[in-house]
Parts: sequence; C-alpha cells; structure tokens
Amino acid sequence: MKTALFPGSFDPVTNGHLDIVSRAGRIFDRIIVAVASNESKSALFSMEERKKFLEHVCMDIPNVEVISFKGLLLDAARNLKVSAVLRGLRAISDFEYEFQMAMMNKELDSRFETVFLMSSSQYSFVSSRMIKEIVRLGGDVTPFVPPIVNQALKEKRGKILEETAE
Amino acid sequence: MKTALFPGSFDPVTNGHLDIVSRAGRIFDRIIVAVASNESKSALFSMEERKKFLEHVCMDIPNVEVISFKGLLLDAARNLKVSAVLRGLRAISDFEYEFQMAMMNKELDSRFETVFLMSSSQYSFVSSRMIKEIVRLGGDVTPFVPPIVNQALKEKRGKILEETAE
Amino acid sequence: MKTALFPGSFDPVTNGHLDIVSRAGRIFDRIIVAVASNESKSALFSMEERKKFLEHVCMDIPNVEVISFKGLLLDAARNLKVSAVLRGLRAISDFEYEFQMAMMNKELDSRFETVFLMSSSQYSFVSSRMIKEIVRLGGDVTPFVPPIVNQALKEKRGKILEETAE
Amino acid sequence: MKTALFPGSFDPVTNGHLDIVSRAGRIFDRIIVAVASNESKSALFSMEERKKFLEHVCMDIPNVEVISFKGLLLDAARNLKVSAVLRGLRAISDFEYEFQMAMMNKELDSRFETVFLMSSSQYSFVSSRMIKEIVRLGGDVTPFVPPIVNQALKEKRGKILEETAE
Amino acid sequence: MKTALFPGSFDPVTNGHLDIVSRAGRIFDRIIVAVASNESKSALFSMEERKKFLEHVCMDIPNVEVISFKGLLLDAARNLKVSAVLRGLRAISDFEYEFQMAMMNKELDSRFETVFLMSSSQYSFVSSRMIKEIVRLGGDVTPFVPPIVNQALKEKRGKILEETAE
Amino acid sequence: MKTALFPGSFDPVTNGHLDIVSRAGRIFDRIIVAVASNESKSALFSMEERKKFLEHVCMDIPNVEVISFKGLLLDAARNLKVSAVLRGLRAISDFEYEFQMAMMNKELDSRFETVFLMSSSQYSFVSSRMIKEIVRLGGDVTPFVPPIVNQALKEKRGKILEETAE
Repeated sequence: MKTALFPGSFDPVTNGHLDIVSRAGRIFDRIIVAVASNESKSALFSMEERKKFLEHVCMDIPNVEVISFKGLLLDAARNLKVSAVLRGLRAISDFEYEFQMAMMNKELDSRFETVFLMSSSQYSFVSSRMIKEIVRLGGDVTPFVPPIVNQALKEKRGKILEETAE
Repeated sequence: MKTALFPGSFDPVTNGHLDIVSRAGRIFDRIIVAVASNESKSALFSMEERKKFLEHVCMDIPNVEVISFKGLLLDAARNLKVSAVLRGLRAISDFEYEFQMAMMNKELDSRFETVFLMSSSQYSFVSSRMIKEIVRLGGDVTPFVPPIVNQALKEKRGKILEETAE
Repeated sequence: MKTALFPGSFDPVTNGHLDIVSRAGRIFDRIIVAVASNESKSALFSMEERKKFLEHVCMDIPNVEVISFKGLLLDAARNLKVSAVLRGLRAISDFEYEFQMAMMNKELDSRFETVFLMSSSQYSFVSSRMIKEIVRLGGDVTPFVPPIVNQALKEKRGKILEETAE
Repeated sequence: MKTALFPGSFDPVTNGHLDIVSRAGRIFDRIIVAVASNESKSALFSMEERKKFLEHVCMDIPNVEVISFKGLLLDAARNLKVSAVLRGLRAISDFEYEFQMAMMNKELDSRFETVFLMSSSQYSFVSSRMIKEIVRLGGDVTPFVPPIVNQALKEKRGKILEETAE
Repeated sequence: MKTALFPGSFDPVTNGHLDIVSRAGRIFDRIIVAVASNESKSALFSMEERKKFLEHVCMDIPNVEVISFKGLLLDAARNLKVSAVLRGLRAISDFEYEFQMAMMNKELDSRFETVFLMSSSQYSFVSSRMIKEIVRLGGDVTPFVPPIVNQALKEKRGKILEETAE
Repeated sequence: MKTALFPGSFDPVTNGHLDIVSRAGRIFDRIIVAVASNESKSALFSMEERKKFLEHVCMDIPNVEVISFKGLLLDAARNLKVSAVLRGLRAISDFEYEFQMAMMNKELDSRFETVFLMSSSQYSFVSSRMIKEIVRLGGDVTPFVPPIVNQALKEKRGKILEETAE
C-alpha cells in the first residue's frame, strides 16, 4: 500500500490544499495530512483548530487521515513509514524553496522522496498568508476557503487586526 | 476619461516610482497615487510625511493626484471608479507576487484590471527597502531618491539605527 | 484619445488573445490589433487568414481594429501614434523576453511605452505554439480557440503533419 | 495497483532518467516508460534504438515496462489507465514548460494527473541535448550516460558531426 | 596582486561557504573573508564566535584572511582596495537579490565589481538559515557544516529553541 | 598571473561584450577572448570577420588577446592553462543555461572554474540575436554595437533578409 504524507502549517486550510488532497487520493492508496506544530511562527489558529478544520473538510475524502507532528518532517516520514512526502507547487518561489527542502531531506536520508502536484490554475494564487492579509484588510475570502474556515476567520478578525497593529 | 490608480507604501518614494508615474501620464488621462496606510508594517515615515513627499515631487507632473487609503486595494479601486490599477515590475520576484495579487483581485471582482509598466533599466534595482538599508549602513542614496527625500533620510538616520539595533 | 497597439503573430488567434483584447477595451479608448508579417517564421496560416480570423472574432468588441504590419514594431507604433504597445504576460519565460524587448524599444525611442496585462488564470497555459502541437498529435483544442479557428485547424491538420514529418 | 507513465524522447536515455525511474519504483507499484515517437524532431537514435537502450538499462529495476507511443500523451495515459504521468524536474525552464503541459492536459481531461520528482542534485544539469552537444564537440560523457549509450554515442559521432555541419 | 573580498554573515559558516573560499583561491591571489557585523539581525553566534569558526576552518587554505566589518560593503571594499567582491550563487532567489545588490553598488561606485561563483551541486541547497532550522527541529547537520560548527550548534540548541518559542 | 578565458560566438560582438571584457581587466591580469567556431549554427559573420571585429574593438584594452577555438570549451581552458572561464550574466534564462554548463564542466574536470560578471544595467537587454533581429526588420542598432560592427551589419542586411525569407 502506497501512503503519502502531506505536511503543512494549514493556518488555515484553503481550497487549494483541499484540491491537492483530493487529487492525490487518485494516485496514492492513503494520504496522511500532517499539521506541523510550528513553534517558531505565531499561528493565527491553534493546532487544535487547524486539525479540527482539516478533519471536517476531509471527512468525505476516502483514505485521508489528519495528524499533527513536531520536529523534523524527515523523522515524521520515517516513523510513519510513508512512501513519499507530497507537496503542492504554485509558483516559482514555491519551486525554489521546495527544491532546497527536497534535496536537503534526500541528502539526510536517501530513501526520502518528495513528489509534487501542481496547483490547479484556479488556486494558483491562493495561500494561507494571502487569505489572512485579505481578511485583515476587511475583504471577503469566501471563494478561497471552506465555509467552516470562512466563518472562523470572521470571528478571528479582531485578533488579526490587533496583532498587525502592534 | 481613463484613470489609473497607482498604489504603494512609498516609504519613501524613490526615483523609480517617479519614473513610473511620469511615464504612465502618457498612457492614462489621470493618475491617482494612493499611499497605503500599512498598519501592519512599521513604516519609517508617517502617512503624512509619505504623502507630503509625493505631493512635492509630483507637483510638476500634470494630472496626478495623491491620496491615502485604508483597507483593500480592490475597494479603493471600486470607490474611485478607476479604469485600472497600475503597478511597476522590476524583477522576477516582483512578477510572482504581482501575478498572485492581480489574479486574486480579478477573482474577487472580474472588472478589476491591473496593468504593468516595467521599470526603466537604470531603476531596476531601486526599492524603498534597499534605500533604507543603505542609509542604515551609512551610505549615500542621492542618485536614487528625490532631494526632499534624501534630506529627510539624513534626518531620520538616527531613528533607523535605533530600530535596527533592538 | 488613448490608443493601444496589440501586436503578435496570431498564428492562430487563441481565446487567450481574445481575453486580453476585450479586457484592454476597458482601459484604452481604442485597440489596434496588429498582425506581424513574420517573414522569418513559416506560419501555419497566411497573413490573410490570420487577419480574417481576428476580424471575425473581434467583430463584437467595440473600438477594435485589425491591421497587419511589416518591419519594426517600434516603427509601426510611431506611425500609428499610439499611446502604448499592449502585451499579455503568461509566465516567467514570457516575462524575460518581454522585458528585453520593452527595454530595447525604450532605448531606441524614449517615448515608446509597453503596458502589460496578465493572462487570466484559465488561459495562462494557452499559446499558439501549443495549440498547433496538440492538433499535430491529433488532440482537441475546442476549449482554447474560437470556433472559426477550431474549424480551420481541422482543415489544416494535413498540412501540419506534413511539415513536421520533414 | 498504482501505475505511473513516464514519457519522454529518451534520445538517448541518461543517468538522470534512470535516477527518476528507480526512485519512482518506491512510490508506484509499476512504471511504464513510454518513448514518444517524435515525428517532428529529427532524433539521433531511431525509436528501436531508444527503446532497446531503455529495456537494457531498466532490466534490473523491478516492475518497469518500456513501450513506445504516438500521438497525444493524454490519449496514451487514458488507454493505459495509469494513475498519473510522471515527470522529472530539473530547473526553472523545465518547471515553466511542465507547468503549461500539466495544466493543459488537466483542462482537456480533469482526471489527468501529473506528478513530479526533482532530479537528484548530481544529475540536475544532465539533459539529452547537452549530452549530444558534448559528443559533437569531442567530449567525454561517460559520467552521465549508461555504458551501452556511451558506446552507441561514440559510434554515432560521425552522424552527429554531419548533421550539425549542414 | 588580485584580492577578492568574500563578505557574509557566516552565522554559521557552512561547507558551502568553504567550497567557495577554497575554489576562489585558484582564481585570486588572496581572499579576505569579511564577517558583516549585522546589527539589524539577531545572530545566533556572536561576531567573535563566527570569526573564530572561520579562522579555524580556513587555517589550511593558503592566502585567506578573516576580518570583520561594519557599515557598507562598498566602503569596506574601497578601504581594503580589493579587485572585486566575491559572492556564491545558489539559486534563482540568490540571483535576484545578488543582481540588485551588484547593480546598486556599481551605480554608487563604477569601479566596484562583483564576481560570482556557482555553488557546487552538492551544496546548492545548503544555507545558514536552513542549518539553524534543522537544528531547531532536532535534526543532524553533520554533512553540511565543519565539525567545529556542528559541535557549537549542539551546544547552542537550547538557545535556538528558546528564541523561536517566543 | 591570473588569466581568464572569455568564450562566445560573438556573432557579432556587442557593447555588452565589451563592457564585460573591459571590467574583467580590473579583476584578472589577462583576458583571452575566444571565438567559438560554432559549426552547428549558421553564423552571420565568418570566423575571420568575428575575430577581426573583436581585435579592432579590444585594441585599446590592455592585456586582452583574441583567439578562436574548436571543440569543447573545457579542452580550450585546459590547453591554455587559464585560471577561470569568464561569462556575463544578463537574465534568468542566461542564468539557467550558464548554471548547467558550469556544473557539467565542473563535473568533467573538478579544477574547471567559471566566474560570472553581471551585465551593466544599460546592456542587460542586448544580445547578438536581438541585434540581428532588429537589423532584419530595418531598425537602427547604433547604440548597442561598436561602429565597425554597425557598418558591417548595414552591409550584411541583404544577406540577413535572404536567410530569413527562406
């Protein structure tokens, strides 16, 4: 059985992430979505919230499991004995960074593999960072995120404004 | 009458910005330079200073108006009923980011248009961020900014050093 | 009155070209679509055919005129006294080439301006070259070209195969 | 069972191709290497030679099959009922082209998926085109191609020189 | 005698830096490795530590000297009367930034020259930032840094975790 | 004594090439400009013409020698015992190609070094190919090439038109 690990911050999950997960389901037997604990970045949503949103929106996609992890992606991939790590590619800047990460991980463990799916064109400009920026400026992100995330972002808008005001 | 909105932080305005504004005057009937309030970034110059510099340096360019705005660029463009948003392109990294922004705004409002002018080659490496970095290190930015900004940067040098020392 | 010149080979015109022309109509008062005579490349369609397709598909877009030109784009722009040359940007490789052309033309005549519109995301991968490649391999390009071009490509398929077989 | 189709010209197969095939074997249950007939390009090696080299060098990699195909990649993928098309990514220019192809194929058939593996750093500069260029100039490509190909290139050197002399 | 100045933060020095220094020794008569004081970034290692590591690892490379500098690179290059500034290029993002810096310095002083060496492929993904990130997550960076730095990173691990936890 | 080899087709030499040669003279003790015989491309100017133009325009730059070479650049560099090969970098597409070449040559001979100088901004869009294209279309390239080349291009214009008409 071929399993792929799909890691990320998912702060919050977007329709672009969902697109990758559901398409990967046709290629792998099983997908493990892995929320990174991200100690170093101040996340908008807590680990629990980010995991809850993912579980909710992946509910109807077969063979998907949501977990969280701490530490090196490489160690998570080894412990879970996955066939490959799955990443979405949106644009050149993604490509550069992903290339560096994939090569470094490969160097640290030659069995480590990263496979890439390209974002569908309608999501090629959607990122968690842009979603938060638009919400901060009072914009509407309904077309870019699942309804449960859209609702949560509206409730969080106060917090977003406070943080950026500092 | 065709109006273009030229948004930015302008912290501070550079000769590269001026180049774009004056060239755009041959293409559009009217240019509105719009200073973003940038709550989230700690600006070197206040909104009032940034606007004052722009008004001073655009004085002799016909059909240019300087305003400030808060919130989404998309909303500013709608309220002002402009034909298009105008952006300068310097390099690949600009291109990536501008591409994402233009596509996301287009998705949010299909009437929204972004037009791009490429920086003149002599300004292709000039950015507000680099200007501030050079001043911080004690360098001379006379060739890259209008005289009024050059003078103000000299006066601000103390503040720049303090901030980066923290 | 602000006029833009939209030059290209248009061999053949695609839905991506049409998208740019119709969006430009909101920004400029008038668009001149200019088919380059391309002596150096062996075109699939003759100049007459390429012009005919463009006239047909631009029929319902107001303030658009189709012409053909020989020689330097710069000279055509001067003779027609346009405000700017209009180009679509699809991707990085476009960007590099367009950047070089825009800077060289600017150097040859400082009044020359190039403005860019970014392709809509659903056309960001459509090019005349790819259209011809797909037809050559027996594929269907219905979603990417106007019906009149689709029909003509089917009729030309024999010629495309012959050329590539040499 | 998850099958990947790995298409290409393979004119000739390089150690970079082999690296991708053998790594993909850990991710997919089965790999079909598909040699494109490339009517439009004048290949150095005939279809039979290119297939023979691939069969020879893939002999010891389990679950790999070598075929040839004509026409659209999309049609080959459909007929073979593969889970995904597999492509190697070397650099930015690859990325741009691969991105366009993946998006266009996705548009023509929404079930079509392309997955990417990045070249190992030691092969990131190896391409069939460069191999042929070096041989043409009298250089040694021993580190970059399998021994059977190296031998064949030495025998073909006369033909390469003739073609480029025209 | 031709001298090159090799500036950087070196926080900490990596095997990639060492690769550039030792290769540059074949091209220039003398290399001055110059550690920037970096007031604006909170460095992991102090200036003294960074200089000490460099002195230790460059000990056996002939004609290399390690210094520290404050302020503009341009001024350091002038004061030391070097023939050129030396920079390593890893990837596109490096390229963009380095291009801007080289052009701006050239504009400020036309005698200023920057020469570039490309990273060896096995170090093309190694950066001080990634090294620190891997250590923070509990990973092993033995293949990427000199032993003296590896040891120091293990001792600093507590400090790295604290900072990112804030 | 440090010698750099500056290879190219120089068909024809441009002001961009001259800029690189004269700047390199401050970094190296001696520059050998090496015209590649380019059997595979149909050059506009013969090897003798290309060499003659270079000798003429480099006459006043001290320590520059012009030669021609056949075969691998790597072999030329070895035979001439140069310290490094010198290349100009104009843009991303240059970068990609140069990166591949530098890495492949390094792999074939670990002592082989390539150093890069970035084009001055005013020449960042000048290439021999573009020069020939502009002349073909009847344009003026006076600002981009030395007078001796400008004159020769005018005389060759007939030949350029013929070739592209085929």
